[in-house]
Amino acid sequence: MNSFFNRLTPKETKFFPVLKEMSDVLISASDVLICYVRSDRSSKEPDYYKEIKELERKADDLSNRIFEDLNSTFITPFDREDINNLANTLDDVIDSINKSAKLVLLYNPKKMPESAFKLAEMIKEATIQIGKAVDELDVLKKSPENIKKYCRELHDIENRADDVCDNYIMNLFCEETDSIELIKLKGIVTQLEKTTDTAEVVGKIIRTIIVKYA
Amino acid sequence: MNSFFNRLTPKETKFFPVLKEMSDVLISASDVLICYVRSDRSSKEPDYYKEIKELERKADDLSNRIFEDLNSTFITPFDREDINNLANTLDDVIDSINKSAKLVLLYNPKKMPESAFKLAEMIKEATIQIGKAVDELDVLKKSPENIKKYCRELHDIENRADDVCDNYIMNLFCEETDSIELIKLKGIVTQLEKTTDTAEVVGKIIRTIIVKYA
Amino acid sequence: MNSFFNRLTPKETKFFPVLKEMSDVLISASDVLICYVRSDRSSKEPDYYKEIKELERKADDLSNRIFEDLNSTFITPFDREDINNLANTLDDVIDSINKSAKLVLLYNPKKMPESAFKLAEMIKEATIQIGKAVDELDVLKKSPENIKKYCRELHDIENRADDVCDNYIMNLFCEETDSIELIKLKGIVTQLEKTTDTAEVVGKIIRTIIVKYA
Repeated sequence: MNSFFNRLTPKETKFFPVLKEMSDVLISASDVLICYVRSDRSSKEPDYYKEIKELERKADDLSNRIFEDLNSTFITPFDREDINNLANTLDDVIDSINKSAKLVLLYNPKKMPESAFKLAEMIKEATIQIGKAVDELDVLKKSPENIKKYCRELHDIENRADDVCDNYIMNLFCEETDSIELIKLKGIVTQLEKTTDTAEVVGKIIRTIIVKYA
Repeated sequence: MNSFFNRLTPKETKFFPVLKEMSDVLISASDVLICYVRSDRSSKEPDYYKEIKELERKADDLSNRIFEDLNSTFITPFDREDINNLANTLDDVIDSINKSAKLVLLYNPKKMPESAFKLAEMIKEATIQIGKAVDELDVLKKSPENIKKYCRELHDIENRADDVCDNYIMNLFCEETDSIELIKLKGIVTQLEKTTDTAEVVGKIIRTIIVKYA
Repeated sequence: MNSFFNRLTPKETKFFPVLKEMSDVLISASDVLICYVRSDRSSKEPDYYKEIKELERKADDLSNRIFEDLNSTFITPFDREDINNLANTLDDVIDSINKSAKLVLLYNPKKMPESAFKLAEMIKEATIQIGKAVDELDVLKKSPENIKKYCRELHDIENRADDVCDNYIMNLFCEETDSIELIKLKGIVTQLEKTTDTAEVVGKIIRTIIVKYA
């Protein structure tokens, strides 16, 4: 009975807090990633990878909750599949942060390059822009101007991250003579850069929603 | 005339058998992949790669048949583009199986690691879950509970495949000193793992359809 | 006031010229890529990478113009999000051409292999097919037969590019003993092949539009 009325009550706003929670998890994960990349990976350091892994699982649960809620909700602010896509893509961002951290753990390179620090900071910037965009989803239809700006920002961050990654790899091929170390460093820096690509995809999904409801 | 009536007749069910045929092809291809990975790749072995290539072409034809049928069908069980997406993604899975087999052929590593066997088995498991989900597409709108379970299973398989791949690569960097052999083995194992990613995408597409028609 | 009427006036056709302009930019970029791959990359050569970079920015601007126009247009020939997706994917193709050129610049391999020339030519072929398909978008609903043919062509080009790439990499692992040079050449040839994958995605997006409006 309760469930029946529950289904008929409009709940436009119930998805926004969960999406917001997801974007907060992204920001936290990018904070831990910065610490991890900056750490000397000794046994004295906190287990940063484990922290990121836990945040990744939390985001996974939130994304699932959205999926289940969408299936039992009559009215949603946007088409159901758009909210589901957005939640999936936020999940992809934290998966990519998690994968970056995992490569640091797996490859354990001798020395972490400055470019990896820069890229981790850029990932943080990107998650903050995502947070701002998610914050304004409730006014997306009425005034999308700010959200468009954040999406544009995600695009610019990705471009800058690309440059950092490219310059690093060009130098790496000139300077690194140990081919195993080269594979490791190229792998880590490329994966960090890919995380900004995934963050940009969030911007593209949001732009598609803007276009759809314009 | 026939064509005219054909177009007006509802044929909700005509796409399911073809999708089912595609998922059967996926299962067959993953069976051959297991044999290929387990083989010693000598000239006495059957030409496993050729068998997979043929299955891949068959899936390509089936996917095209669905595309052409969608264009001449008036009523379909779901939105036409959803069925087309699903067929495309099933096609992506077999493309990825085919690519895995191709890397085995191209790289011809000295020794196939145990992790490659495990991953090939996991790909088989994933294609079986896909088969089960496709089997129940006709009741997706009424009772999606089982299908949701299979999608969840695809997600779990991908997570476990990730762990197998990561552990293997961590050890590989510790033990393999021949950097060419390292590139080969890393490439094959990563591609096998990517195949479980693609299988999970099938689950995501199906979940999007569930959400859309909830 | 002008803006108000502007919004109410049907402008089915206003997006086609911009999409056409984008596809022309793709063809130009693939022409420059051929020159770059064939050049000896000496200081006497024109700055091909810079030319491609500029074309990439131009495509980016055009894609943004389409996004902004979609947001202020009342009636569009297809669903707004389909046009936006198509523009985004055209943008992905030139991003991939740009990335191919960047790897040539970054890696600066000792000798460019014949397969890289072949692949650059295939990318050109693919952009020409895309151009033809974009040319006929205005008749997509009435007579999609030619467009289907171009999409099929994009699929075939991708298959052939795959073979060129695979054969090259198989030989590379047999013949190249310098593992750093191997990583570079494998990276460039793989990226060129990926560009034909992205071109095929344009075909897939167009096929999805065909299916939707069939």
